[in-house]
This record gives sequence, structure tokens and C-alpha cells, in this order.
Amino acid sequence: MKLFYLGPEGSFSHQAAGLSMRNRSSAIEYIPKVPLENVVKSLCAEGADAVAIIPYYNYLEGLVQESLDLIYENQVYIVGSQRVPIIFCLGGYERGLEQTGISSHPKALAQCSQYLNQYYPNIPHVEVSSTTEGARIVGERRSGFAVVSKEGLLKYELPLIKEDIGNIKHGKTNFTDFFLLARQDISQYHEKTDYFTMIAVTPYIDRVGLLQEILAQVSFYDLNLAKIHSRPAIDEVGNLGVEPQMFYLEIMCHKDNEDFKHCVDALEYKFTPKNSHLSAVRILGSYPACS
Amino acid sequence: MKLFYLGPEGSFSHQAAGLSMRNRSSAIEYIPKVPLENVVKSLCAEGADAVAIIPYYNYLEGLVQESLDLIYENQVYIVGSQRVPIIFCLGGYERGLEQTGISSHPKALAQCSQYLNQYYPNIPHVEVSSTTEGARIVGERRSGFAVVSKEGLLKYELPLIKEDIGNIKHGKTNFTDFFLLARQDISQYHEKTDYFTMIAVTPYIDRVGLLQEILAQVSFYDLNLAKIHSRPAIDEVGNLGVEPQMFYLEIMCHKDNEDFKHCVDALEYKFTPKNSHLSAVRILGSYPACS
Repeated sequence: MKLFYLGPEGSFSHQAAGLSMRNRSSAIEYIPKVPLENVVKSLCAEGADAVAIIPYYNYLEGLVQESLDLIYENQVYIVGSQRVPIIFCLGGYERGLEQTGISSHPKALAQCSQYLNQYYPNIPHVEVSSTTEGARIVGERRSGFAVVSKEGLLKYELPLIKEDIGNIKHGKTNFTDFFLLARQDISQYHEKTDYFTMIAVTPYIDRVGLLQEILAQVSFYDLNLAKIHSRPAIDEVGNLGVEPQMFYLEIMCHKDNEDFKHCVDALEYKFTPKNSHLSAVRILGSYPACS
Repeated sequence: MKLFYLGPEGSFSHQAAGLSMRNRSSAIEYIPKVPLENVVKSLCAEGADAVAIIPYYNYLEGLVQESLDLIYENQVYIVGSQRVPIIFCLGGYERGLEQTGISSHPKALAQCSQYLNQYYPNIPHVEVSSTTEGARIVGERRSGFAVVSKEGLLKYELPLIKEDIGNIKHGKTNFTDFFLLARQDISQYHEKTDYFTMIAVTPYIDRVGLLQEILAQVSFYDLNLAKIHSRPAIDEVGNLGVEPQMFYLEIMCHKDNEDFKHCVDALEYKFTPKNSHLSAVRILGSYPACS
């Protein structure tokens, strides 16, 4: 089975891919792709048994709009989920540190700023395109430090200086949640698991109180909302003279839940334009709640 | 006056800074800072007349949670706004192109993928930490191409190959909206301008239908919602056994609007915990609607 992930090798996407496949017995071919769009496009060019993994939520950044859009536009299905803690290590060589500095992706350097400022206040930061690229450079030169995942450290055989140096924000270590995607809905339901369902709601109109009407239906059917994200509607919405919104809603239940089905029916009845090929609600998929 | 922006020099933040100051007569000292957190922290360490500029919305990525969090946590004020179209140019030297490749930030390469794949399908992409870093490298080597803003092209004196090569998504060129921040609310109201106001609402409880209740108040007072983003509550919320949410709401009016004031009063009355220093609503600031 082919599995596409956001490269390079050793990235957190790569980790997520490995973790999500840990119980599979079949042989898996892990294929890195860049950018994010090509991860999903590669899946679309394959047969029904290929899968892809993309980040959809980060604790510090929230929902990843681009990922949700790619699922929506390419009509692929969410069939699983995987949480990966974003744990950075410091590794490399004290030799030449003052000249070579500490190499990593700007976001990784930012997330480790407290530790680095405390213990290495006068060492320059060198921004590179990815954390693994930083580790590769340090490994090649055998000089200076890299901030990278443990996997990246091992891959380039850098000596470990200090584990888990990332900032603690709001009492938590940063994490990223990933979706496993497929071209068909091959997800399986397990009774003792808590599920979430991601839907996209496009009302195709705009007026005061619209989102409140949508959420009134969600709460009428006793459904709980985990996350919400608004964006300008992606689908063609005709010449309305306004810019309608669409909403990504993460609902705390499985899509086979009876209340959920009634809620979706109500929203579609009210908001789907008559005599059109459009649909006011699209179910992107159900997946085990990450934790 | 000091103005802090997200560096390096020549970045889109730098452009936003220049545009937002185009009508000021006083001398301005532009100071680049990395990462985003240090832009806001630098502002906080200055006197009342310094300002900072940070991105808060991108057309492809939505609201920038990290920026909203920084405003919330550091209690600074939004005092202005600035939209910057994200327009990429191709520049550099045909010489050695097949070896040196096309250098840029991964996101810039992604946003120009259609043009690059059509006209330069077999040229390698070289990912670097920023678009201006790519231009600097190409300028130094006098070989290969860079994908960078026009300002970046001029800065490193690269010959222009082709202007505006970014992908068109959903009929639009990508853009980023920036907030101008200050330690005090020095914003001015102009009668003929449309304003938006960003607020953070933390209900400090969790139950089915909570967001719908909040939005029912917003629409009761005839207020229109431009954007919404949910995240786990930042403030301490006691030992409730649940994980309450907070909501960033962008409302289409100025904070001095009477309806808006009534709405905020209602939400604070209902959701602010009694006998606490907490507040259910925080007004982050009003600013002219970007367009």
C-alpha cells in the first residue's frame, strides 16, 4: 500500500504516518511529497487502496485551513486520525558552535526560544527550510547544533545534547493532529471509541444571524461542537452581491449517529439551493478523537 | 517612532509596515524581529509611542491564531490594519539554472507551483528559510532563479524574469491582512470608514449550545460576524473537569457602536465568573475593514 506524506523524510508527518500504520500487517511504501497540495493530488492519482496523511490541527496554530480546503476540493475522505507531540531535541557538536550557530526551521527555533535564550543566549540562530535539513547540515559539517525531532537526530547520527527543549504554552507541550485520507470511505467503526466528525457547511446566502441558525440546529439535536473555523465560501455562489461564508465544524459524534443525521438533513433542507447540483453540507469524514 | 515587524528586511511584513506608515510625517525607525513573539515582546518593552505590525489573516490559511493569542496575552491594542497582496516574481539568472535551481521559501514555491511546473518542469526547487534569503543567495552566486517579492528582487538587484507568477485560488490573488499594534489605544475614528472589531469571548464553562447562545446575542443586536475561530481557553478556568473553549469573533462594526456595547454588556453579565478578576469579553481593538 502506498502512503503519501508531507516530506522531507524524518518530518513530523513522517512520524504520524509510521504511528498511524503501527498495527497494519501489510507492507507499506512511505512516499514523501511537497508541498501539501501534492500530498493530496498524489493520493487522487492512485487507486482505491492508497492513503495519505496531512496535518489538520496544531495546538498553537489551530485548524489548518489549507488542509481542510484540500479535502473539500479533492473530495477525498477522512478515514483516521493521529496525534503527534511536537518534541524538539538539541543535538550536534559544541565544536565551532559560536561560528556555526544553532540551525533549524524558524518555527522550531521559536518554539524552543526560552531554553535557547537561557542556556545559549549569545549563539546565533540559523534559519533553514526544515528541521531535518538543519540536522543534515550539522551532521555534514560536524559543527554546531540543530533543533530537530529525535528521529531527525538519529537519522543524521547527531549526539544528543538535551531532550524536549520546547516551550510549554498554556501548560501543554505543542502537538499536531493528522488526518489519514483515502479516495473511498474505508473507515471502520469501533463501539468503544469516541468519534469526531468534520463537516463543511456552505449556506450559499449571507445575512445577520446565519451561523447562529446553523448552530441552533446543532444544539437542538444535542450535538456538541469541538472546533469551528470560518472562511469565504469556496464553491461558486452566483452573483449575490455578497461574499457568503462557509464553516468547518468539528462535531463530537460519529457520522452514523441518528441525531447527527437529523441535523444534517435539517441544514441541507434549509440551505441547499433548489434545482442545483450544490449541497449545503459535506461530510468530510469521521475519525477517533485524538488525545 | 519605533516600528517592529517580522523580519527579515524585505519581507511582506516589512511591506505592510511601509504601507501602513505612508501618510505619517514623523520619522520612523523600522526594526525587524524574529520570531513573531519577539515582535510583540519588543513593543511591550517600549514606551507608549512605539508600534508593531503582525499578520492576522491570510486568504489561504485563515486567521493566524498565534497572532491573536499574542495580542490577548500581552494586552496590547489593535490600532490599525493593512492588506498586502502576496505577489511573487521570478528573478535571477538563466546561467547555471539546471544546477542551481529555483530558490525560495517552501510556501512561496507552493503558491507558484502551477507557473513553475508549466514553464520550468525539470528545474529543481531549493527550499530556503525565507524568500529574501533565496534572493540573497541567487544574487551572490549570480546563478539560478529566486521566487520573491518585487521589493526582494530590487534589494538584491536580480533581473526580473516574470512578474506575478502566483497561483490564482478561488478567483483571487492571495493576500495577508496585518494589524498595527500599540501599548495604548491610540486608534482614531473616521466617520466614512467601515470598521471591524476583534473580540475574544471566554465563557469559562462548557455545555452543548454555548457558542449558539453567544451568537444569538450577536444577532439579537443586529451585528454581523465576519470571521470566527475557536481554540481551547487560554485563561485559567479552574478545575471544571472539562476543557472550555474561547472564541475570537470579528464583528462588522466599531467598538463605539451602541448595539455592540449592549452585546458586550450582555455577554459579560452572563459569562463573567462572579467574584473573580476574569472577564468573559476582551475587546482587542477596532480597525478599518481591509480591502
